[in-house]
Amino acid sequence: MVVMAYHLLGAPHRLFSLGTFVEMLSAAKSTISEDLGFMRQAFDRFRLGKVETLPGAAGGVRYLPLRGKERIRQLVEELCQRLRDPTRLLPGGFLYTSDLTSTPRYATELGEALAGFFDETRPDVVLTMEVKGIPLALMAARAFDVPMVSIRRGAHVTEGPAVSVNYVSGSSRTVQSMTLPLRAVVAGAKVLFIDDFLRGGGTARGVFDLMREFQAEVKGIGVLIETTTPRQKMIDRYVSLIEFGGVNERGEILVSPSRWL
Amino acid sequence: MVVMAYHLLGAPHRLFSLGTFVEMLSAAKSTISEDLGFMRQAFDRFRLGKVETLPGAAGGVRYLPLRGKERIRQLVEELCQRLRDPTRLLPGGFLYTSDLTSTPRYATELGEALAGFFDETRPDVVLTMEVKGIPLALMAARAFDVPMVSIRRGAHVTEGPAVSVNYVSGSSRTVQSMTLPLRAVVAGAKVLFIDDFLRGGGTARGVFDLMREFQAEVKGIGVLIETTTPRQKMIDRYVSLIEFGGVNERGEILVSPSRWL
Repeated sequence: MVVMAYHLLGAPHRLFSLGTFVEMLSAAKSTISEDLGFMRQAFDRFRLGKVETLPGAAGGVRYLPLRGKERIRQLVEELCQRLRDPTRLLPGGFLYTSDLTSTPRYATELGEALAGFFDETRPDVVLTMEVKGIPLALMAARAFDVPMVSIRRGAHVTEGPAVSVNYVSGSSRTVQSMTLPLRAVVAGAKVLFIDDFLRGGGTARGVFDLMREFQAEVKGIGVLIETTTPRQKMIDRYVSLIEFGGVNERGEILVSPSRWL
Repeated sequence: MVVMAYHLLGAPHRLFSLGTFVEMLSAAKSTISEDLGFMRQAFDRFRLGKVETLPGAAGGVRYLPLRGKERIRQLVEELCQRLRDPTRLLPGGFLYTSDLTSTPRYATELGEALAGFFDETRPDVVLTMEVKGIPLALMAARAFDVPMVSIRRGAHVTEGPAVSVNYVSGSSRTVQSMTLPLRAVVAGAKVLFIDDFLRGGGTARGVFDLMREFQAEVKGIGVLIETTTPRQKMIDRYVSLIEFGGVNERGEILVSPSRWL
């Protein structure tokens, strides 16, 4: 049973046929089924995600890392607590978050939490903008067993033929460009965009434009932190985990779980 | 048992006290111990890594993702096969590898494979150079349950006080700079440097210089691909998984598992 758990947990969303396990473990199909039943119950009971069995010849079993709302909220509260440390405030109204998003435990849980909002979508690829969004995007991609693709800032690229688009950075109001190798996303792909920070939404807007050039469709946007101002973003639909309202007159950093939690 | 597997597998190298599981599962300590024994045996038998029990009050149980040599070699052979696709050749003698290193399954297995070389070292932090090394470094960091830190190219930085050093890029022979926020690495830290590509070793040399400024020590260097020329690198000790010998007269890409496998 732990061997099956090892494989299922290590590759969320990937479908394993029962035959794979029958062969791997030299066990009867009925034993495998029974063990999977126990596993499903245990995961349900402890809210560790879902073990899903699909019937039929093309069927099998897979693991979906659905974390409970409470667990996500608890994690986000813990992060907010750490983000309130005044030394995290950076010039330009940014917060130092790299140490948190690059800690594998946080990256995994936050990536899975963001992925959870788009469980119905089943993206073909998870996109992000270099650099700080990469750990979250990789872990969200892992939750869906799909590739992660990171868009490069600027027009320079060393990865073969590429598409660049210009975008207006929501924060600095300057025109910048973003570049993606032509082969990185195929036409018709369903794309989930994950990033660490959303202010005006200019970057996300640029991602929409870029994906139009690839004939791919942005099915969802998930960010770790959004600023409360401007309230009106350049994009309509997105989810965030944390809202950041700047600093109050006492010098306190205003962060709280977002309205989606 | 699967619940314990869930927690142990999800946080490699993290020590869980038996009491944690006793409480979580409302089970007797003897039952927990017995189940961990079964788990250890199953993981040994199927070479899925090691379940290690440490005795004493400060003891507990942890999971070490040691992959068998054969499994690593098999994975690397599979990657080499994919890398031989002639469309992967980029101007300047580089190979297009982002799609592979950003695929969560590969990133996980390759990151764990690289981490495995430094199991005795137990680094405090896994460093990488942005951008392409990040997925591998994050997964290597995950295997050690330590933070990942990515060095930025150039001297521009928006993450507070930072240290920059110059380095000579081994490939272009130009002087460049790399920057890391002061708070990203603490003095005395044992550092593992993970990157996707090693040619001359100039970047790795720069990382040594940078870590000297942080009073941290580079305990190991692991790269996915090294070029066979120049054979003499600017660093002495490192490991790689794949050797890349350029292109032969028939236009074939020469890649093979490295001499460490």
